[in-house]
Amino acid sequence: MKGISILGSTGSIGEQTLAIVRLHPGRFRVVALAAGSNLEVVERQIREFSPSMVSVGDAEMAARLNRALADLPAKPWIGHSIEGLRVAATAPEAELVVVGLPGSTGLLPTFSAVQAGKDIALATKEVLVMAGALFMETVAQTGVNLLPVDSEQSAIFQALQGNGAADIRRIILTASGGPFRDMPVADMNRVTRAQALDHPRWKMGPKVTIDSATLMNKGFEVIEARWLFDVPASRIEVVIHPQSIVHSMVEFNDGSILAQLGATDMRIPISYALAYPERVDSGAPSVSFPRLATLNFQEPDYDKFPLLRAAQQVLESGGTAECITLNAADEVAVELFLADRIPFRQIPRIVIESLDRIPPRTCSTLDDVVAFHEEVVRQVRAAWA
Amino acid sequence: MKGISILGSTGSIGEQTLAIVRLHPGRFRVVALAAGSNLEVVERQIREFSPSMVSVGDAEMAARLNRALADLPAKPWIGHSIEGLRVAATAPEAELVVVGLPGSTGLLPTFSAVQAGKDIALATKEVLVMAGALFMETVAQTGVNLLPVDSEQSAIFQALQGNGAADIRRIILTASGGPFRDMPVADMNRVTRAQALDHPRWKMGPKVTIDSATLMNKGFEVIEARWLFDVPASRIEVVIHPQSIVHSMVEFNDGSILAQLGATDMRIPISYALAYPERVDSGAPSVSFPRLATLNFQEPDYDKFPLLRAAQQVLESGGTAECITLNAADEVAVELFLADRIPFRQIPRIVIESLDRIPPRTCSTLDDVVAFHEEVVRQVRAAWA
Repeated sequence: MKGISILGSTGSIGEQTLAIVRLHPGRFRVVALAAGSNLEVVERQIREFSPSMVSVGDAEMAARLNRALADLPAKPWIGHSIEGLRVAATAPEAELVVVGLPGSTGLLPTFSAVQAGKDIALATKEVLVMAGALFMETVAQTGVNLLPVDSEQSAIFQALQGNGAADIRRIILTASGGPFRDMPVADMNRVTRAQALDHPRWKMGPKVTIDSATLMNKGFEVIEARWLFDVPASRIEVVIHPQSIVHSMVEFNDGSILAQLGATDMRIPISYALAYPERVDSGAPSVSFPRLATLNFQEPDYDKFPLLRAAQQVLESGGTAECITLNAADEVAVELFLADRIPFRQIPRIVIESLDRIPPRTCSTLDDVVAFHEEVVRQVRAAWA
Repeated sequence: MKGISILGSTGSIGEQTLAIVRLHPGRFRVVALAAGSNLEVVERQIREFSPSMVSVGDAEMAARLNRALADLPAKPWIGHSIEGLRVAATAPEAELVVVGLPGSTGLLPTFSAVQAGKDIALATKEVLVMAGALFMETVAQTGVNLLPVDSEQSAIFQALQGNGAADIRRIILTASGGPFRDMPVADMNRVTRAQALDHPRWKMGPKVTIDSATLMNKGFEVIEARWLFDVPASRIEVVIHPQSIVHSMVEFNDGSILAQLGATDMRIPISYALAYPERVDSGAPSVSFPRLATLNFQEPDYDKFPLLRAAQQVLESGGTAECITLNAADEVAVELFLADRIPFRQIPRIVIESLDRIPPRTCSTLDDVVAFHEEVVRQVRAAWA
C-alpha cells in the first residue's frame, strides 16, 4: 500500500484524489491531510480515511477540529499553519505527497516534502513558476519522482514515456482559451466576476479559473513546462483547442507527435500520478470520437491576452525574480478582481506595469524567493489596493 | 552501423526507407536489396548504396541486371525468385529486415528472416493477416524485435511505449475513409479504376490503394492489430478521420488516451522502425495545428464498406483459414478490378461469397497456410475470372 499525504485536501485536487483512493482501498492509504478553513469537509475526510496526521489553517481551527472529533476512538495528530503543513508534507508513512495547495502557500511545504525524499504529485504550479530552477535542482539532488498533475503537464509527461528528452523538437501546449476566447476585445472591459468564474471546460478553484480567463494560467504552464521538461521557451508552442480533449502534445525530431487525450476530468492525471508507472481505474468517462466529431485548433490572440505573451517574454529574457513578480502581481490583481475592487481588464495592466516598475533582485535561495515574493505583494498592494 | 536488408526496395516503402538511410550515412548500411521487375530503379539503388547481395524477380532479370552492372568494380551477389528473396531476408550482415513486399509474396521471406534472428520492420500486412498466430509465436520464440511500419500500427506501437499491455482498454484505429468516404452507395457502382486509385491522403502501391477504397485495408489492419498487440477484435474500434493526422490511438484503463499524430508521410513510421528505440530525422514536415484548424471523426459506414465488417467478423468467429480466404479472395478480386475485368462493387461480393462458399481447413503450419492460400486463389479465379 502506497502511503499518501494530501496537501490541500478540501480543494478540487484534494477531493478528486480522495475519490481515486476510494476506488482502490487496497492500493493507497491516506496518511496525512492538510486543509485550510473548510473544517466540515476535512472532518468528513478524517472520518472516512483515518489519516494519522492532519493540519488546518490556524490554532483556533485546530482546536475546533479537535473538539469535533472528540468521539473518535483514535484521533489523528492535529497541527496547524505553516508548521502543520510541513509536518503533513514530511509524514514518515507518506511515500507520495499530493500538492494541491492554492497559490504561493504551496512553495515551502513542497520543498520540505522533496527534502524528506517524498515523491511529489504536483498540482500547484506556483512552485515551478516562483522557484523552477531551485526546485528542479532539489528534485535532482534527492532523486524523488516529480509527477505533474496539471492536465497539460501530465499529457506531456505521458507522451514522453519511452522517449528520450533529447528527441523533443517542440512541446505543443493546448489551451481551451477560457470563457472569453471568442469575445471581442472591446467587450472585455465589461466582463463580470460571474462570467470570469464560469470556465467552459474545467471546474477549478477561483484563482486558477480567473487565471484561465486571462490566459495567465497558460503562461504559468509555459514556465512550468520549461522547468519540468527542460525545454526552452522558444520550443514551447501554445495552441488554442476549445474542446479541451487533446491535453497537450510533444513533437519529436522525426516529425512524430504524441498527444494525450481524454475527458476533461482531473481524475485522469491525478490517478496517473498516484499509480505511476502503472495505471488504475480513475472513474473518468471514455471519450467517443464519432460523438465528439470535431477537434479545433487556432493561434492564441496575444493582443487580447497579453499575460500569455508576458509569461513567454519573462521566460525568454528574465530570471527567477521576473517570474516571481509575474506570479505575485497576478496573485494580488486576481484577489482585487475577486473582491470587486478592479475590473477584469485591470488584471493584465497591474501585472505588466509591475513587471516594468519593480526592479528584479537575485534570488538564489528559497529564503530569497519568499522574501522577494512578499516584497512584490506588498508593493503591488500599496500601488493598487 | 545497423545493417539493413530491404525486401521490396523499388516499391513505395523501399524507396522511402532508402531516403531515410540517405539522411543518416553513418548510422545505417544497406546490405541487401530485393526487388521485382523494376531493374532500372534497382540498378540505381545498387550504384548508390552498394549492397552485398541483391535479388530480383526471375533468372532472366538477374542476368540482365548482371550485364547492366558490368562496369562495377565490386558487383553484389545477384539472386532471383523466392530463393533469392530468402537469401536477402537472411543476409548475415543484416540486423534489421524491412519487409515492403506486395501481398502474399512477403510471407515466406519474412518467416525466414525471423528464424534467422533478424529484427523486422514490417509493412506487408499479409504476413499477419494470413498467419498471425503462427508468426507471433515464431517472433516470441526467436525474441526478435517486430517493428510495425504501417502508419496505424506504428502509432499504436509508439503510444504503447512506457505503458503496460495489460492497461489497454481499447485500440482506436483511424481510417481516412478513402476516396469514396462521402460518395452515396448508389454511385459506387459507377466507380472507375482511376477514381479508386486516387487516394486523398496517401500515395501507395495499387493493391493497397484499392484496398483503402473498399476499406478492406482497414479490415486487414484490425486483424494486424489483434496479433501485434494481442487485443481481441471487440476492443479494436475503427473511427473515420478524413484528415489522416491522428494515425491511431490507445485508450488505457484510466481513461487516458495516447495518440500518435503527424504528417501523412510514411518516412515517420519507417524512420521509427529503423532507429527504434531512438528517433532520427525522417525528413518529414511538421504539422501546424493552427493551420490545420480542424480534425474530424465519424463512425464508418458498414453498409457501404462491407469488407470492414467482414474482417471484424472473421476475426471474431473464424480462424486462420477464414483470414486466408479473406486475403486471397481480395487479392484475386483486386487483380480482376485492376485488369478492368470486374466493376468496383464486385470486389466485396467476390470476397464475401468466397468466405461463404470455400470451406475452411486447419492451417497449423506455414506449409498449410501457403497451400490453403493457393487453393483459395485457384478457386476464386476459377469462379470469377
